[in-house]
Amino acid sequence: MGYVVGVDLGGTKILTALADGQGNILARVRVPTPAAQGVAAVIECLARTVREVTSGASLEAVGVGCPGPLDHVTGTVHQAPNLGWRDVPLASLLRERLLVPVFVENDANLAALGEYARGAGRGVERMVYVTVSTGIGGGLILDGRIYHGEGGGAGEIGHMTLDPNGPRCACGRRGCLEALASGTAIARRARELGVGDETVTAAAVARLAGEGDAAGAEILREAAAYLGWGLANVITLLAPKRVVLGGGVTAAPGFVENARAETGRRTYGPAWERVEVVPALLAGESGLHGAVALALGGGAGAVRQG
Amino acid sequence: MGYVVGVDLGGTKILTALADGQGNILARVRVPTPAAQGVAAVIECLARTVREVTSGASLEAVGVGCPGPLDHVTGTVHQAPNLGWRDVPLASLLRERLLVPVFVENDANLAALGEYARGAGRGVERMVYVTVSTGIGGGLILDGRIYHGEGGGAGEIGHMTLDPNGPRCACGRRGCLEALASGTAIARRARELGVGDETVTAAAVARLAGEGDAAGAEILREAAAYLGWGLANVITLLAPKRVVLGGGVTAAPGFVENARAETGRRTYGPAWERVEVVPALLAGESGLHGAVALALGGGAGAVRQG
Repeated sequence: MGYVVGVDLGGTKILTALADGQGNILARVRVPTPAAQGVAAVIECLARTVREVTSGASLEAVGVGCPGPLDHVTGTVHQAPNLGWRDVPLASLLRERLLVPVFVENDANLAALGEYARGAGRGVERMVYVTVSTGIGGGLILDGRIYHGEGGGAGEIGHMTLDPNGPRCACGRRGCLEALASGTAIARRARELGVGDETVTAAAVARLAGEGDAAGAEILREAAAYLGWGLANVITLLAPKRVVLGGGVTAAPGFVENARAETGRRTYGPAWERVEVVPALLAGESGLHGAVALALGGGAGAVRQG
Repeated sequence: MGYVVGVDLGGTKILTALADGQGNILARVRVPTPAAQGVAAVIECLARTVREVTSGASLEAVGVGCPGPLDHVTGTVHQAPNLGWRDVPLASLLRERLLVPVFVENDANLAALGEYARGAGRGVERMVYVTVSTGIGGGLILDGRIYHGEGGGAGEIGHMTLDPNGPRCACGRRGCLEALASGTAIARRARELGVGDETVTAAAVARLAGEGDAAGAEILREAAAYLGWGLANVITLLAPKRVVLGGGVTAAPGFVENARAETGRRTYGPAWERVEVVPALLAGESGLHGAVALALGGGAGAVRQG
């Protein structure tokens, strides 16, 4: 086995890593995404970056994580708003340039796969990954594989309804988990309660709470409790061995602990006895490690844990 | 391929069917379960019934559906309250007597598998089965296989929390879907509102509603709406192609339609576009067909759809 490259393609930056056949990352390159210059410029930039990080090593495959709904079988990105893309055949465009197999996968699924292969999900077969940042996303590893659902639509944990009379969600409905526990929801609640100023963010609320602001702390506790309730429903349904929490919001002091406590109160007993709720281990690189694992596994195939 | 036998082992009756290699049922035997006479009597009765329905045909395998938590790999039933069983090695006890492979599976999973193989789930790869009767149970067919979860604990749709301040559930927590939409919940609500008498059942409420009782109709509408909300969360998370509704309560006029309408309102848009919510097709025999499919598939293996 030669080497593989994993790519985390985001709206603002492209993170690229060369890895060996065991998934150990040997080199990284990070460049800004030339999204404003159009699809061709981004593809060219991706190909150049892959070549740069490979620097002559024998390349076997490339895995790419990309935001938005996409077809992981054909590697076509249906929609990626922060890239301005619609129906871009990303895998085949890159394959033409790099002349190796290219696999494309949703970024939330790859973050899940990364934690599964190299992070907090090692040693288990059934894992749910949830990221809480601006929004709330998720990825499901069931019986050792990414579970995609119809049209790749599975894992929308952030849009499970908790409170039908709750705040309006970006998706148009009310009381989704995302509308109650995401960074956006925390900031909105802070503005409602006059915590911080007009431009307050979830990070600012966490900072204020850390400095002893009781209202800020209460906003975070409430968001963590909603997250815990949402996780409880996922665990009751899927009985995973591990739930892995990533994303900036979960780094707030006490957030994971508060979410876990509420999860314990609301999860069906037998499922709660068998699950662990833990923080992600790979920080900003879950998706990058997932892209490497995807390339090593040959796309949808089973993935070896590191 | 010779013949297989499927068994639906319940607390009150044992339903046994002989089927050919395509899963067509050729003969049925139904006997009362001698649960009160202890484990050995039930095993003896099962073996006798299997021999009777087989009547000399060449038997290849037996599939058995059984209530309660069990280990589908070893075929040991951990707990089956309505049989009075604890840690009964059902598969090996039957194998000793019948001298063919015996596979054991949870009854909700087998009802799902039956609908998948021969009923309302044919032609899809991802299906959620939900039964609404005294309680609410479920089975998940994901990517063509039963998804078991850790310790066989997956599919507890009835214990997803919808209303943390809702009525107490049999599991000890509050506002589970089962406490809001099951037959037991419907009967409890009817007693609270004085619909019917002290011994009112969900079936009686459905009858009253059918005769024009407005309060009874409203109780059923409310239960269907809660079911729809619960289904919406399952669909948003798993993006199945089909949700199949079984169990006596779903036979009440308008119940499936009302549940489906609420599901549409509460499901995340992209997942809702791809799913169908339909009634079960095999009536009281979903589990029996599932037991046949289990035997044909050699236990946990992939199942051919009929």
